[in-house]
Amino acid sequence: MNYYGNPMTRLIEELAALPGIGGKSAQRLAFHIINLPREKVAALSEAILAAKDEVKYCSVCCNLTEEEICPVCANPKRDHSVIMVVEDPRDMAAYERTKEFHGVYHVLHGAISPMTGIGPQDIHIRELLSRIDGTVAEVILATNPNVEGEATAMYLAKLLKPLDVKVTRIANGVPVGGDLEYVDEITLSRALEGRREL
Amino acid sequence: MNYYGNPMTRLIEELAALPGIGGKSAQRLAFHIINLPREKVAALSEAILAAKDEVKYCSVCCNLTEEEICPVCANPKRDHSVIMVVEDPRDMAAYERTKEFHGVYHVLHGAISPMTGIGPQDIHIRELLSRIDGTVAEVILATNPNVEGEATAMYLAKLLKPLDVKVTRIANGVPVGGDLEYVDEITLSRALEGRREL
Repeated sequence: MNYYGNPMTRLIEELAALPGIGGKSAQRLAFHIINLPREKVAALSEAILAAKDEVKYCSVCCNLTEEEICPVCANPKRDHSVIMVVEDPRDMAAYERTKEFHGVYHVLHGAISPMTGIGPQDIHIRELLSRIDGTVAEVILATNPNVEGEATAMYLAKLLKPLDVKVTRIANGVPVGGDLEYVDEITLSRALEGRREL
Repeated sequence: MNYYGNPMTRLIEELAALPGIGGKSAQRLAFHIINLPREKVAALSEAILAAKDEVKYCSVCCNLTEEEICPVCANPKRDHSVIMVVEDPRDMAAYERTKEFHGVYHVLHGAISPMTGIGPQDIHIRELLSRIDGTVAEVILATNPNVEGEATAMYLAKLLKPLDVKVTRIANGVPVGGDLEYVDEITLSRALEGRREL
């Protein structure tokens, strides 16, 4: 129903179309927005369009960036002979926050998933293969530890091994700070398999 | 941390500044937005600015509208001699959905609240008083049934009564479909006070 006039109704509809925002939240957000100072509203409006228009994929690793090459790939202090392959820019950010990885990344933007019709040609595998030019010593497969991520890792391993590069997979195991009681059996088995001598 | 470039970081910050949207949700929304088709992103961006720029207050009742006078006030079929006073446009919409009220509204855009420094001059009381011109038979006070709403209703009643207009307040009572067991004591007392002969 159009109780607040067309511009307001349109805004509520646009907001409600976003994931995780229901009708009531959309209404609450719309009222918040029209009560903000105009410059704040303009900033929000512009940030949305700017993100769409200015964000592109790094021509090397396919991470999001507004430059031709992302800051990680452009950094000469990073070890360019080690590539960590992740599904999503957020996974890359998660590893960056650890400050433990000093190599570079490759962002697939998805995982192979026959169930949802995503095949190897739909994710950025070609770009990864073109980076294996003799200067790369190791590719660490850090796709998610779920069905799609494992399948993608297996597929990539098969493609990469003939290219004379070391291919590794991040370890499965019990999460640090977790409680064994609540860890699922497959993870417990993997943690046992992967045990190391102290 | 700026892992996704400036435009993306700015969008995440803008979204996280909205009420009820935390850092993780903002990130999820931002990724959703950059993966939408450009025309959808443009529509969202424009709807935000249009709502801010085009929505104004009805010159009669202070409801939100993009016209000079809102559709309810402009409707000759509504009973313009009965004004329902509400705090917020959403309260008006709630009463419109009942389809039981055929009069017109007045939207105060707030309630008197000394705790948060909102006085009578900060809400649209002046505009209400200017509507009491002899043609209005009844003013129904439908402010919220909480401390601020009650205080506002009492204040308005004192102002309106000398103007020779009937002033009423919506009833307190048990909500329809509710369970007496879970209704608070004050509401139960009010429901008893307000009992009607069948």
